[in-house]
Amino acid sequence: MDSKEVVKKLLNKEMKLYEVDKHFPADVACDIRREFIQEYSKTQLPNMGNYTLNMENASKRNIENSIGVLQLPIGVAGPMKINGEFCKREVFVPLATSEGALVASINRGASTITASGGVNVRVISDIMTRAPVIKTSSSVESLKLKQWFEDNFDRLKEIAESTTSHGKLLKIDPILIAGSYVYPRFVYSTGDSMGMNMVTIATEKILDEMTKETSAQHIALSGNVCVDKKAAAINMVEGRGKTVVADVLIPKDIVSKKLKTTAEAIVEVNIAKNLIGSAVAGSTAYNAHYANMVAAIFLATGQDAAHAVEGSLGITTAENRDGDLYFSVNLPDLPVATVGGGTSLETANEGLNILGVAGFGKAKEFAEIVASTVLAGELSLIGALAAGHLARAHQQLGRG
Amino acid sequence: MDSKEVVKKLLNKEMKLYEVDKHFPADVACDIRREFIQEYSKTQLPNMGNYTLNMENASKRNIENSIGVLQLPIGVAGPMKINGEFCKREVFVPLATSEGALVASINRGASTITASGGVNVRVISDIMTRAPVIKTSSSVESLKLKQWFEDNFDRLKEIAESTTSHGKLLKIDPILIAGSYVYPRFVYSTGDSMGMNMVTIATEKILDEMTKETSAQHIALSGNVCVDKKAAAINMVEGRGKTVVADVLIPKDIVSKKLKTTAEAIVEVNIAKNLIGSAVAGSTAYNAHYANMVAAIFLATGQDAAHAVEGSLGITTAENRDGDLYFSVNLPDLPVATVGGGTSLETANEGLNILGVAGFGKAKEFAEIVASTVLAGELSLIGALAAGHLARAHQQLGRG
Amino acid sequence: MDSKEVVKKLLNKEMKLYEVDKHFPADVACDIRREFIQEYSKTQLPNMGNYTLNMENASKRNIENSIGVLQLPIGVAGPMKINGEFCKREVFVPLATSEGALVASINRGASTITASGGVNVRVISDIMTRAPVIKTSSSVESLKLKQWFEDNFDRLKEIAESTTSHGKLLKIDPILIAGSYVYPRFVYSTGDSMGMNMVTIATEKILDEMTKETSAQHIALSGNVCVDKKAAAINMVEGRGKTVVADVLIPKDIVSKKLKTTAEAIVEVNIAKNLIGSAVAGSTAYNAHYANMVAAIFLATGQDAAHAVEGSLGITTAENRDGDLYFSVNLPDLPVATVGGGTSLETANEGLNILGVAGFGKAKEFAEIVASTVLAGELSLIGALAAGHLARAHQQLGRG
Amino acid sequence: MDSKEVVKKLLNKEMKLYEVDKHFPADVACDIRREFIQEYSKTQLPNMGNYTLNMENASKRNIENSIGVLQLPIGVAGPMKINGEFCKREVFVPLATSEGALVASINRGASTITASGGVNVRVISDIMTRAPVIKTSSSVESLKLKQWFEDNFDRLKEIAESTTSHGKLLKIDPILIAGSYVYPRFVYSTGDSMGMNMVTIATEKILDEMTKETSAQHIALSGNVCVDKKAAAINMVEGRGKTVVADVLIPKDIVSKKLKTTAEAIVEVNIAKNLIGSAVAGSTAYNAHYANMVAAIFLATGQDAAHAVEGSLGITTAENRDGDLYFSVNLPDLPVATVGGGTSLETANEGLNILGVAGFGKAKEFAEIVASTVLAGELSLIGALAAGHLARAHQQLGRG
Repeated sequence: MDSKEVVKKLLNKEMKLYEVDKHFPADVACDIRREFIQEYSKTQLPNMGNYTLNMENASKRNIENSIGVLQLPIGVAGPMKINGEFCKREVFVPLATSEGALVASINRGASTITASGGVNVRVISDIMTRAPVIKTSSSVESLKLKQWFEDNFDRLKEIAESTTSHGKLLKIDPILIAGSYVYPRFVYSTGDSMGMNMVTIATEKILDEMTKETSAQHIALSGNVCVDKKAAAINMVEGRGKTVVADVLIPKDIVSKKLKTTAEAIVEVNIAKNLIGSAVAGSTAYNAHYANMVAAIFLATGQDAAHAVEGSLGITTAENRDGDLYFSVNLPDLPVATVGGGTSLETANEGLNILGVAGFGKAKEFAEIVASTVLAGELSLIGALAAGHLARAHQQLGRG
Repeated sequence: MDSKEVVKKLLNKEMKLYEVDKHFPADVACDIRREFIQEYSKTQLPNMGNYTLNMENASKRNIENSIGVLQLPIGVAGPMKINGEFCKREVFVPLATSEGALVASINRGASTITASGGVNVRVISDIMTRAPVIKTSSSVESLKLKQWFEDNFDRLKEIAESTTSHGKLLKIDPILIAGSYVYPRFVYSTGDSMGMNMVTIATEKILDEMTKETSAQHIALSGNVCVDKKAAAINMVEGRGKTVVADVLIPKDIVSKKLKTTAEAIVEVNIAKNLIGSAVAGSTAYNAHYANMVAAIFLATGQDAAHAVEGSLGITTAENRDGDLYFSVNLPDLPVATVGGGTSLETANEGLNILGVAGFGKAKEFAEIVASTVLAGELSLIGALAAGHLARAHQQLGRG
Repeated sequence: MDSKEVVKKLLNKEMKLYEVDKHFPADVACDIRREFIQEYSKTQLPNMGNYTLNMENASKRNIENSIGVLQLPIGVAGPMKINGEFCKREVFVPLATSEGALVASINRGASTITASGGVNVRVISDIMTRAPVIKTSSSVESLKLKQWFEDNFDRLKEIAESTTSHGKLLKIDPILIAGSYVYPRFVYSTGDSMGMNMVTIATEKILDEMTKETSAQHIALSGNVCVDKKAAAINMVEGRGKTVVADVLIPKDIVSKKLKTTAEAIVEVNIAKNLIGSAVAGSTAYNAHYANMVAAIFLATGQDAAHAVEGSLGITTAENRDGDLYFSVNLPDLPVATVGGGTSLETANEGLNILGVAGFGKAKEFAEIVASTVLAGELSLIGALAAGHLARAHQQLGRG
Repeated sequence: MDSKEVVKKLLNKEMKLYEVDKHFPADVACDIRREFIQEYSKTQLPNMGNYTLNMENASKRNIENSIGVLQLPIGVAGPMKINGEFCKREVFVPLATSEGALVASINRGASTITASGGVNVRVISDIMTRAPVIKTSSSVESLKLKQWFEDNFDRLKEIAESTTSHGKLLKIDPILIAGSYVYPRFVYSTGDSMGMNMVTIATEKILDEMTKETSAQHIALSGNVCVDKKAAAINMVEGRGKTVVADVLIPKDIVSKKLKTTAEAIVEVNIAKNLIGSAVAGSTAYNAHYANMVAAIFLATGQDAAHAVEGSLGITTAENRDGDLYFSVNLPDLPVATVGGGTSLETANEGLNILGVAGFGKAKEFAEIVASTVLAGELSLIGALAAGHLARAHQQLGRG
């Protein structure tokens, strides 16, 4: 069977897209499918077809029915001085985005940070969670099941950890009950991988044990209490992925020179917009645009773009300290990895290498860089809004 | 100045990254910066350097300090039969992701949909919003300002629309007040562009008028009531971007054959996980994983990845209709475009062409495809969870 | 049948509690049931039995199976100077509570307000809502039903208003859709009654018309989008009952003399507690204790205590204006009435008379008083916290 | 000084309301103030003046500036059969309300419950919380303070427990950080009192120790993370007061006979209204009207009415089990007491005595009764909505 025949079969619906993989190597199958799509859609896809990533590898772990690749431009912001527990140096941050001015804005924030001696950043907690939903016959049985999990924690921990070399079951907490439904939140540490697969497998093993020993029914491995890829209060309160805080103290003259504004104006914008504005809108995120920075650095380093939803959570604070500006970002929910998932894709790996955080032992250092980048972008945008406000205020005064 | 000299200057901090653009064409500047980053980070970036997109164009609209491109694999799911108001045909959907099994799962959903006669989909509303924060001297003055906006709507509409050929100011509503702060939400229709820039410019013009005629102070062009790139209740209630609903009625035998489960099991998983589970977790999103589908199709078509945060919102419903499955997804907040932003980047444009929705007059059709894709992925995952649940239930019964 | 016999029958379960009403006047029936409960519970209820309210009237409108009354102490706070649109005078506010120090605290706030020239207060909007849930066969049909409501608004308004002399149907907005379920929010003005009954009857009439003309099914008269007696984002954004704002500007020396603190300290407490603290807790209410004031004045004036849930919503803001304190409360959701419901109960009526707002034409004036009272209590508590903070700060400094 | 003189002084503002207490016994002072208010407001207050509660005692603990009492009618619902861990018997529940039909509705639910063998109810957790806000100089210092609390837990526990005979400090968790602000949530068990005062005093003592040993500043004793009298996600996830679950299994024929409907119709109303309706409205409460039952029983038993805000939280579930109805309520946040606060007021004490739960050792039993009452009222309302729905559905079918 040659490729033209296959394309014909695909067009005639005599063959399915994934069946092409049975007959051809991954990159050839990719070309054939792209050829088919070109014919079907009557369009040309020369750019998607231009790639250097190893489609064979990608097909095993990252993609099905491949037809090529996306090309998204990457810019860098920096140097940014970071004073973390793990990252103590200047970095240039790769950012993949199509939003004009975003990299420039982050760059301005990075420059302000570096001129101020650097951003201070710490990882507060580091967990990954899975929370299945389980069914019992009644509230009383639900409560007994909760008790069963608590009574058997040591044994269940052993069972869970038998499935993984890096993962540790830290606690099962909270265990929420709604009538006959039980939602135990299994909380793990997962080392340098993001850990979703690891915790899924470990939790499944625990549920197998539960099914053997109790009459409870395992309904779904995720009961939406994990909470994965949604903005949820439980993640804000309990954390998920890395919980990271970062701040910087910017001397008055640097606020003026770099941001063209004052600490006072920045504090007002932060209160009016990030705190009160978010409150009146019923928002879950008390910040200006964490999602922008998170999405751009996630894409450039092989993280899951859908996790930008969780990364969008968090609170920005600003204080006027006698004219100096104290500015902080607080990210409760950053699921990041330096191994596994998309991190082995070629350009993602290069992105991690630019930051010096590819491979094992680097996840917390990477999380510090992500949070620092978020601070740079947040500071820059709030600063720009405050500068505009200040300029207009002066104009209005001048008019009077 | 040759490129080696420039790299040296960059290494010595005698030059800034963006200054390279002053001396070289965009693609050369990109190469020089990449060369610098390679030196600085002691790493090689051959894959980032391999690209066909026009860096000159990208540098004008989409990226600063470019060093190359991200390569993210694209797979396709389909054919999926869509019965929309605008899209009435079968499509193959391009999806950019590094999450293994996602494309395969969406594909399974698409196949189930097509076997059932297609997904029904409608765009309910189509708006873009900007909500600045404005300062007055007191609550009473805030109320007067609210009145001013209401009294002058026709005139302000004219002013706003003078800045754009496609945008229309539909209403200023709600106008929220918190003491001396006022948050008017300007609601526009923006045609086929996502419209953020358009509404920003138009709203700025209105605020200039306000500043002339009243003593109110324009604090920030976005007061976080828009709400952009955050999960917020106001967007769920009022909508933002496209609000789209989609559903499908799947005959009993197709539920069984394609999804290996029953309508009853799917309904139970949906209630236990998407409704009750989300409720106990304090989640804003009553679905399993809209963010996954939204992020993958957004990336493949040049949308802003950070908008996946808004796209993650929405509610999945499922009903058992005498053994047949009724299944729906409801997306209140999908900011999408077929022109502008990242849509002109080469592979993004190819992605839109695969769907037949590149260019003007296509945004609603595209939104219908996005929502249909979300339904396909959601159906597939909930179906798989229900199939596992069913299998375990049978095992447990067998044991008894 | 004499009362002893009836008690015996009740004890023997030969008679039901409500059946007593068939044989005796309301107050005698009340005594008999109390006698029964005393026997059954082996306890004495002399205080519940002591009342002057007209149990005959109460039994018709407010209570079933009466056994007596609750006695809850009422204190007054004032005088408080109010500069409203409707209330322009000093008032003493009756407050029913068992929480020691609450009245004293509100009194201190009132005193501070009066010394500062009074609280400025305005009713921004005045509506009552009912949002049934309706079932169709699909999303497409749901959308058609939405259209039907919009197309027939004038006629439906006429139908609704035929059921009431005071109510007006203002709009049906939003009309939310989730698959086959439709939630139209009917928004009325209801004059001086709280209006829940009125809007329920009017909405039912509209739904009867809908049932005649369409195939949609009326599932429940309230679909939880109203939203009655729950803390919900839609009420914060759209308002419910009266939406009221109130503020006061307190000169520096009065902040110092009356509140023993500074504007600066109050601003810090407000940001740290009411804004950031509420945000990190996933709270819906950005204030210290609106619910306390709302519950106490609601009880003393015959409002529904369960509506304190809605009254707990809102945002407090504070600003340091060169040492003077600007302080505001913002209440989006105050369902209040001066006629109907519990307002005709004797002590409630006396409570409204103390305020001069019993009867028709007074509801907005009363709402202004409620919001002013909320401000008094909020100011006093935040002031006290700030005073403590200030005192400790001085102590710490002294130690150094 | 005789009472007439005092009234005159009050009218002339030569004396303040609270100063009356210095010269007269509590009940006389109460009369004088009432006399003054009558004069000031030109109204008569005979009913407020009629009371049997001991105003002397009330003035010490529950009220300031007393002028009399509120009379609110109390009805009873029952008998209701309760199968709790602590309450295993039939009860008649006293309910104070002015909302006509509420007691009757709860009564119908109680009757359905009792006919079905009773409501099953359990207290899952029992805590009271205080979460101050503390200020440090930076995120890094905030993290150190978090560590300090964790490292010194045993010692701080001892300090806290030295202030109380019943309270125990269970944990300090979570400790949330936002930049320089730290919010440690102190979690106590408090025995039979509601415990707010107890935990306030104990926490203050801990903060005194903190102030001595660290440079952190105690900003406010409550940082709104407790969360008291507001609807907040942290309380739903972590619980506050008593967390209670209750359910009942109602045989098919009793659903039909008592509720005039079917399990199927009740399940549909519950999904459409309590789950999906609440979700689209951005509500924090997934139930029909918990607040009504909570407020009515709280008032009749001396609980704080403002705590109905917390009691409004929770999720109702319903299942159709082969025609039988499984129905549950889940209350994460019920702050209740059988000693202290308003429970010693005469009628409140009588209310507790009716239930047999006055005094020490009874708080959990009382919590079981509250949750059972909530279930009775919720079941009755959802049942009534479903019965209406069923009736209309039959009518529509008949028409066809």
